[in-house]
Amino acid sequence: MTKPIGIFDSGVGGLTVLKEIRRLLPNESLIYFGDTAHAPYGGKDAETLIARGREITEFFLKHDTKMVIMACGTSSSTSYDRLCAEFPHLPITDTIRPAAAETVRLALQTPDFRPVLIATQATINSGLFAAEYNAGCKSKMPHIPSKPAQSNLPELPKLHLRACPMFAPIAEAGFVGGHPVACFAAKNYLADLRGKVNALILGCTHYPLLKPALAKVLGEITFIDPAEACARAARDAAKNLPPPDTPPEIRYCTSGDPEKFSKLARIILNEKIVCEKIASFK
Amino acid sequence: MTKPIGIFDSGVGGLTVLKEIRRLLPNESLIYFGDTAHAPYGGKDAETLIARGREITEFFLKHDTKMVIMACGTSSSTSYDRLCAEFPHLPITDTIRPAAAETVRLALQTPDFRPVLIATQATINSGLFAAEYNAGCKSKMPHIPSKPAQSNLPELPKLHLRACPMFAPIAEAGFVGGHPVACFAAKNYLADLRGKVNALILGCTHYPLLKPALAKVLGEITFIDPAEACARAARDAAKNLPPPDTPPEIRYCTSGDPEKFSKLARIILNEKIVCEKIASFK
Repeated sequence: MTKPIGIFDSGVGGLTVLKEIRRLLPNESLIYFGDTAHAPYGGKDAETLIARGREITEFFLKHDTKMVIMACGTSSSTSYDRLCAEFPHLPITDTIRPAAAETVRLALQTPDFRPVLIATQATINSGLFAAEYNAGCKSKMPHIPSKPAQSNLPELPKLHLRACPMFAPIAEAGFVGGHPVACFAAKNYLADLRGKVNALILGCTHYPLLKPALAKVLGEITFIDPAEACARAARDAAKNLPPPDTPPEIRYCTSGDPEKFSKLARIILNEKIVCEKIASFK
Repeated sequence: MTKPIGIFDSGVGGLTVLKEIRRLLPNESLIYFGDTAHAPYGGKDAETLIARGREITEFFLKHDTKMVIMACGTSSSTSYDRLCAEFPHLPITDTIRPAAAETVRLALQTPDFRPVLIATQATINSGLFAAEYNAGCKSKMPHIPSKPAQSNLPELPKLHLRACPMFAPIAEAGFVGGHPVACFAAKNYLADLRGKVNALILGCTHYPLLKPALAKVLGEITFIDPAEACARAARDAAKNLPPPDTPPEIRYCTSGDPEKFSKLARIILNEKIVCEKIASFK
């Protein structure tokens, strides 16, 4: 029997990852869990987030999931190592590490690369993306000494960081696209960066839903969407797993309001879906 | 030794209640707990909210609290009865019941009273305020039969209900007063009610922080702020308790970021405060 791939997020944001997964792995069965009853994740402490990840992973395992995708930047930044240690035989893919690797790749090949990571407070506080980015750049830029002396060697493109705690709740409330609420929040968080940066790393899977608002505030900008890098990493990991042998099925679950979830999912996925309420894991 | 009064909310919203408590009970010592790490409460299920209320109440009891004020509309609507049953010897005051009683009082004495309750999804879903309001009006309006026949008797002023899930997160993010983010969210939720209602019940303790935005969208409107009714109920309950015998002390605690809390508290209370981080109740 086909074993599904489990995908989870604090809410609907991870559907941006699911969409990419469906594009790259169209034959895989998927089970999505949006933890809306406990959203947003962005201001929560690591122990709370690890506990949520553990419970959701156990729920996936009850459904015979062969791989888990942490389609949430906050979980990826705070819970990935612990979950990997707790479930050593389960392949787990996150969004932040693949996105950082992709950002390194672009930093090395793009002249005048001026990146900014926007993310939740927990993701920024974790320091993970910045550490991965800096280490990745240094390891791949042989001309940059690990302790740079004053020299004319090329400089590591400086990574700006900006916490945007309202963005995920704003998207979760349905104020997506270029909605005035999204535009004003974006202006509030990012207006001072206009012209200073030219690459925007969407460090939370909800943020692709706000692209029009972000573009309006930041002007000409290249979006780096972790959904794509994460889906590629998941595709690579899936190569080592048993392939599906039945037609793909997709199941959508939420701990919150399934109607609200379905409504937003329809906007994100551009198709009508049915969502199940999972009231309790017990 | 003076026993403090415990006051809690999902975040800073309950400070609007604390402010009123300080005005009415200036000699009492207070301990405030803002559960920011688990905010917002408004989309959470009842069991989760009851568990939060229980843990916070146990924390208060460790600090010898003589009374608890649930300065949160969502907790009041979903957890009050259970907490009262679990802590039978502890006086507990909520915000929704006193606010409903105050709304009944105004309904009876105000010609052309057209009220709307704005609140979180959980508060609206609970149906509690509407039930209290309707029962209160019926019991105090002797001319209205319990099963009204077609007649010329005065009608119960109809209560409108409107869930505004973004308002508490918006206030918690510091977009308070007439901030454009608050104004646009208010427009989104309430613009169609302009002219239709003339009394706005602020069913969440965060909402007084958004009064300028609400007034801008709704025009001429009477605000019904549960903080005042709740503080009066607390004053009445405190009459039966041992009075303070030392100068009042106020302690502010949060499960979230104490700096962010202090910054917003300064705006709300118009004074500088120090906030302690409570990382765990264990």
